Amino acid sequence: MGYAVIFMHRQFSLQPYSRHYTHSTNCFLDFMELRNDGIIGVNPNHAQKMRLVLEKYRQAKKHEALLFIEFVTVTDYLFLLRSVTSIMSDLNERALYYLAAAVSDFFIPSQKMAQHKIQSGEGALTLKMDQVPKFLKPMVMNWVPRGFIVSFKLETDSNLLVDKARHALTRYGHQIVIGNLLETRKIE
Amino acid sequence: MGYAVIFMHRQFSLQPYSRHYTHSTNCFLDFMELRNDGIIGVNPNHAQKMRLVLEKYRQAKKHEALLFIEFVTVTDYLFLLRSVTSIMSDLNERALYYLAAAVSDFFIPSQKMAQHKIQSGEGALTLKMDQVPKFLKPMVMNWVPRGFIVSFKLETDSNLLVDKARHALTRYGHQIVIGNLLETRKIE
Repeated sequence: MGYAVIFMHRQFSLQPYSRHYTHSTNCFLDFMELRNDGIIGVNPNHAQKMRLVLEKYRQAKKHEALLFIEFVTVTDYLFLLRSVTSIMSDLNERALYYLAAAVSDFFIPSQKMAQHKIQSGEGALTLKMDQVPKFLKPMVMNWVPRGFIVSFKLETDSNLLVDKARHALTRYGHQIVIGNLLETRKIE
Repeated sequence: MGYAVIFMHRQFSLQPYSRHYTHSTNCFLDFMELRNDGIIGVNPNHAQKMRLVLEKYRQAKKHEALLFIEFVTVTDYLFLLRSVTSIMSDLNERALYYLAAAVSDFFIPSQKMAQHKIQSGEGALTLKMDQVPKFLKPMVMNWVPRGFIVSFKLETDSNLLVDKARHALTRYGHQIVIGNLLETRKIE
């Protein structure tokens, strides 16, 4: 049967299956055609691939193997992550947590946010941002102590990458840390 | 024939026609169905609407009445706007400029950007952002002095809105300024 997947994602991010179409420069309407009888078909050049995608998507839905949960702010994300991991903690190492969301390191807590739109007439703007609470350690220590956790370390400086990834491995007790360099992350 | 449209938009924003499908919570694959003969069809509940959307989209493309140009940064946006308006300025008031992009008021110029990812170990972050160059005035004065310009003023404070919208009208010499309050902009 394989894994069932809970796909926690930022609103409007790429999603499984539909990702082949939603963010393409040509929107999916370019893959469709209007037949003379008024019926909408799929362009023959794209039909085979779309059928495969659609079949897999239907399978996943039919077997209730895919749940989408969306978030917008980093606060939403952290509360969601805590809830989901708490619920799943009984699965122990049979649950794999794949922490691929690029969560920001800094944020402005709601109580420090301006009530109204910031007026731009007064020149430069200085923003003070707080650090996002570190959640990788409590996640392992308290939420899912026996979960199988795969996390990511992204850097732009290749001299830092390996040390920081290794540090994350020992410090957070994750099972796997995947180190990526920003420039080469899509090809290496 | 109506207008031909140059749709300058932020990458991955909503786009004409496909907007009915790309950003819905259920991705467009939910509108499709796999028939027994292996052919992909459109769910009967959605076929009529999709046919109308597809027909209009095909018409616009056939008549070369729709050009998509995408940008990512505010700098891209400003250079693009200057190029497009300069090319179109000979059309005078027959060209309508509908400035609906929510361009940020502040940005970090590339020469002031950190070279590497900012490390988060050192507590809070202070960001100094410059004002985005004001382009509404030069647009009218220099780029398209006789164009028909519709601009937008968004505020969160209803006490400021009318004055600021009126001020924009006289200060920039736009033909129309549409004032919106953030909370009610989609219903009023």
